[in-house]
Amino acid sequence: MSLSALLAVARGDAPADLLLRNGRIINVFAGEIETADLVIFAGKIAALGPGYTAQVELDLHGAYVAPGLIDAHVHIESSLCTPANLATALLPCGVTCIVADPHEIANVAGATGIRYLAEISQNLPLHVLLMAPSCVPATHMETGGATLTAAHLVALLQDGTVHGLAEVMNFPGVIFGDPDVLAKLHAFQGRPQDGHAPALRGKTLNAYAAAGIGSEHECTTVEEAAEKLARGFYILIREATNAQNLHPLLPLITPQNSRRICFCTDDRIPSDLLDQGSIDYMVREAIAYGIDPITALRMATLNPAEWFGLRERGALAPGRVADLVIFDDLNNFRPRQVYVGGQLVAEHGQLSSATDAILHKPLVRAASPTVGSTVNVDWSKVDFRIPARGATIRVIGALPDQLVTEERILPALIQDGLAVADPARDLLKMAVIERHKASGAMGLGFIQGIGLQRGALAGTVAHDHHNLVVIGADDASMQLAAQTVAQIQGGLVVVDNGQVVASLPLPVAGLMSDQPIAVVRHAYDQLLAAAHALGSPLHDPFMAMSFMALEVIPKLKLTDQGLVDVEKFDLVDLFV
Amino acid sequence: MSLSALLAVARGDAPADLLLRNGRIINVFAGEIETADLVIFAGKIAALGPGYTAQVELDLHGAYVAPGLIDAHVHIESSLCTPANLATALLPCGVTCIVADPHEIANVAGATGIRYLAEISQNLPLHVLLMAPSCVPATHMETGGATLTAAHLVALLQDGTVHGLAEVMNFPGVIFGDPDVLAKLHAFQGRPQDGHAPALRGKTLNAYAAAGIGSEHECTTVEEAAEKLARGFYILIREATNAQNLHPLLPLITPQNSRRICFCTDDRIPSDLLDQGSIDYMVREAIAYGIDPITALRMATLNPAEWFGLRERGALAPGRVADLVIFDDLNNFRPRQVYVGGQLVAEHGQLSSATDAILHKPLVRAASPTVGSTVNVDWSKVDFRIPARGATIRVIGALPDQLVTEERILPALIQDGLAVADPARDLLKMAVIERHKASGAMGLGFIQGIGLQRGALAGTVAHDHHNLVVIGADDASMQLAAQTVAQIQGGLVVVDNGQVVASLPLPVAGLMSDQPIAVVRHAYDQLLAAAHALGSPLHDPFMAMSFMALEVIPKLKLTDQGLVDVEKFDLVDLFV
Repeated sequence: MSLSALLAVARGDAPADLLLRNGRIINVFAGEIETADLVIFAGKIAALGPGYTAQVELDLHGAYVAPGLIDAHVHIESSLCTPANLATALLPCGVTCIVADPHEIANVAGATGIRYLAEISQNLPLHVLLMAPSCVPATHMETGGATLTAAHLVALLQDGTVHGLAEVMNFPGVIFGDPDVLAKLHAFQGRPQDGHAPALRGKTLNAYAAAGIGSEHECTTVEEAAEKLARGFYILIREATNAQNLHPLLPLITPQNSRRICFCTDDRIPSDLLDQGSIDYMVREAIAYGIDPITALRMATLNPAEWFGLRERGALAPGRVADLVIFDDLNNFRPRQVYVGGQLVAEHGQLSSATDAILHKPLVRAASPTVGSTVNVDWSKVDFRIPARGATIRVIGALPDQLVTEERILPALIQDGLAVADPARDLLKMAVIERHKASGAMGLGFIQGIGLQRGALAGTVAHDHHNLVVIGADDASMQLAAQTVAQIQGGLVVVDNGQVVASLPLPVAGLMSDQPIAVVRHAYDQLLAAAHALGSPLHDPFMAMSFMALEVIPKLKLTDQGLVDVEKFDLVDLFV
Repeated sequence: MSLSALLAVARGDAPADLLLRNGRIINVFAGEIETADLVIFAGKIAALGPGYTAQVELDLHGAYVAPGLIDAHVHIESSLCTPANLATALLPCGVTCIVADPHEIANVAGATGIRYLAEISQNLPLHVLLMAPSCVPATHMETGGATLTAAHLVALLQDGTVHGLAEVMNFPGVIFGDPDVLAKLHAFQGRPQDGHAPALRGKTLNAYAAAGIGSEHECTTVEEAAEKLARGFYILIREATNAQNLHPLLPLITPQNSRRICFCTDDRIPSDLLDQGSIDYMVREAIAYGIDPITALRMATLNPAEWFGLRERGALAPGRVADLVIFDDLNNFRPRQVYVGGQLVAEHGQLSSATDAILHKPLVRAASPTVGSTVNVDWSKVDFRIPARGATIRVIGALPDQLVTEERILPALIQDGLAVADPARDLLKMAVIERHKASGAMGLGFIQGIGLQRGALAGTVAHDHHNLVVIGADDASMQLAAQTVAQIQGGLVVVDNGQVVASLPLPVAGLMSDQPIAVVRHAYDQLLAAAHALGSPLHDPFMAMSFMALEVIPKLKLTDQGLVDVEKFDLVDLFV
């Protein structure tokens, strides 16, 4: 589209494509509701006001119109879906733009994985803005699929693949001036740099801010969020599946500070997306709590557009993209129609047929070798047996709904010279098998709190390295579970009594399904049911398992290199 | 300064340079006042909070601390001073950053003039951010000193001389899609693009917004400003010497829309700067009107920093430059001390001695041929006589305190076959002499409303081409005035009774003095007194004269090409 043609429509000298008459526009600039006609041409808003004509004219009869919602920070991979399949859930919610950190696929497939995700995100009705993952790998005590240096990130920035620097989780590296971390910050000077610094306060928070990082989505209390906001961080309030900060943080919001607050979902599984929603849910909940509706919508539109410098988004104004949501009740934000680029993409919670056709196209390059064959294990080196070298072991103590674990010193169960699982004590065996380069590296340990009475779980979703993680009550079940995951080139499985009783293939990097989100959700529900049938009392034992190998969250974790004492930041022996 | 060293100070591991204890910090993020220590190192704010040490520690005893003020749009040349001399007036006011449009010097000396201004603005305690002048020349009906194409502007952007596109005054060119104008907009895509569109409303305003222009400082009424704000324009409220929009626009400001409003001065002469102030005056007046003081200060700090994407300015937060203002009374904003880059630059209205020494250094390259020898006239072709070719003439009707003029059809006074001035009817002769390239071009006409009974005024400040403009009661006075201006290589003069009775040399491009601002102010006062002594009733006849040659403001104007009927956008004959 030429600017000249848009100007002609704006002047009223040429007809628009679409005219939405008599809408009550949420004017995020003025902070007011404005009754006006909305004039759309070639995917953009050409004008607001009376006196225009268009090929298609619709009367909104006073319905409200808001800009399309923006998710300020999300990991697409956490939906277990590709961008297109995720879009099928987000668009009916009115979410038309996501700022995504491709951290998971980057840990599996490096810059190639990021570029692949960028490629399959193109030309979707959902606008996907990628940020550069800043911490790949998380530490040296794991074997990931890739290492991203500052030079790699610069290349991604220069070719336009990424917009800014994604959550800088290595906050000690920032605060203490690690040269590699500072090189990444330097490379992204003048670009948005997102933070990740749970519970950071006082002097160390000052240092993190001084480094130039400008947002933070890990706040859990109003006091923490208020301090971070006052130090200059945009606060991205998060409502993830496993970290629900919205309601605790709603009291943070005041008329004076709301301009510096946005919403994000970070990690949400399909059932939450389909049953509860996304940013639309956060807007509804904020309004129900008592936040002014226009303020709530600004936090989901103009504010993230300002933080990320998206001058074409976040508002209904001439020259901006025509992404918008029509709804009826200011106090119960339920998108009735959603438009992207001036095209109707969803209505009453259902995708339009044209959008459905676009989003359900077969995946481009689904069989790309880099992201399609990522489970590479040297099975000759995989041995789940643990020869007993002592009577007492360090056990990971998983806690319900928490990512932190305990270190528990317990007597081992020894049989035939081997330390084995003891389901009677909820003492399960855990293995992390390197799966990127068939190095044969494998860590073995024990865990409490998962609660299986028999069988095994396995999967290739294991933050951040995403190696093959297995938890089971016996070695044979673990072997079958792990080999099944490898056979399907990544995914999640449950084994019971020598049978695979549930599975979800995740062939894209071992992280994402290529199936529709409803299919993924159904398979995931079956996985949970199967795990519960094995005796797990956890709400989501797969979510729990995926964090038991993450060696940056205390206290005791297991990687392919072995047990990690996170507080000592070092490997420790299984036997005490 | 290395980031590592700043981080060490922020962590509290190394002493700061300066610690300002017990300040009541205007926290522009939170919109609150926060009592805290302010920790400064190497020109930046390292931290806020307790527990730090520094080489120098000062107790503020609860005084308020605000970020340094930002003028969102100003023409340095309108102060008739160089950046350093302007800074001597601005720093005591707490203005530490100006966003300047070097439009005037660009019309005289093109890109070379802009680069010269950039050069003499470097290493000043005042941060000068230049924007690229977008409309040089204003029209084809004048002879200016330079033409700036999109390619010229791109070069200025690429070498870092300019930050964005300055006020796009050619709003018809924008609205109707003039290819040259669109090329400039395209070149600055993604960068701030300032607007200038007086009284534009409705459909044409939609088009101007759709083109991507994002600010507007020409609003004169609340209704106009509210419409522009709602269409996405940042509103830069202006309080210039000759266009005072502050008080009419203060009712615009609401808690909901204030984030999109900034302050600017545009054009201010030395006496206003010295007697009244700058952005500090606007803050004071806004607070006196009833605007919340924190809101008023945000409009002068964080808001322009956000519009221009200045992530290092506009707030007191770790990592930002340590430009700040200490003051005592929230309801009467009077800077007591002003710091720039952590250094005291002014106290109680006086510059610090170190700052004084920096700012009063002799001008770099003052004798640069490009900007130091800009008055070039072929006197052999200068002839003030007007042979009578009819009995009736078109006369410019100047109106007090307005830039628009009337066209008046009046009988000429004919003597010896020549049309001559007739002071009895306040009918003065006016000449505009091309002064850039000695082309010999010269326009002649008549004007009412200036009010001289005898003598003449002349000057090289004549928007936008800045040719040599002369208004007088007789040809001999005009000749002496014009030649005197040329002798001093640009400036303003008053001639009475065959004598130069007042003059102000402006050797830098014929626009700026190289003298201290107090000297300039004194000389300017003398010019006004001399003009008043000749009979002019106007508050500022030189300001009036400088706009009588500006052929983009209706109705009748005079350039070196002749009389221009602005509404017809064409040259017209003097004789009817």
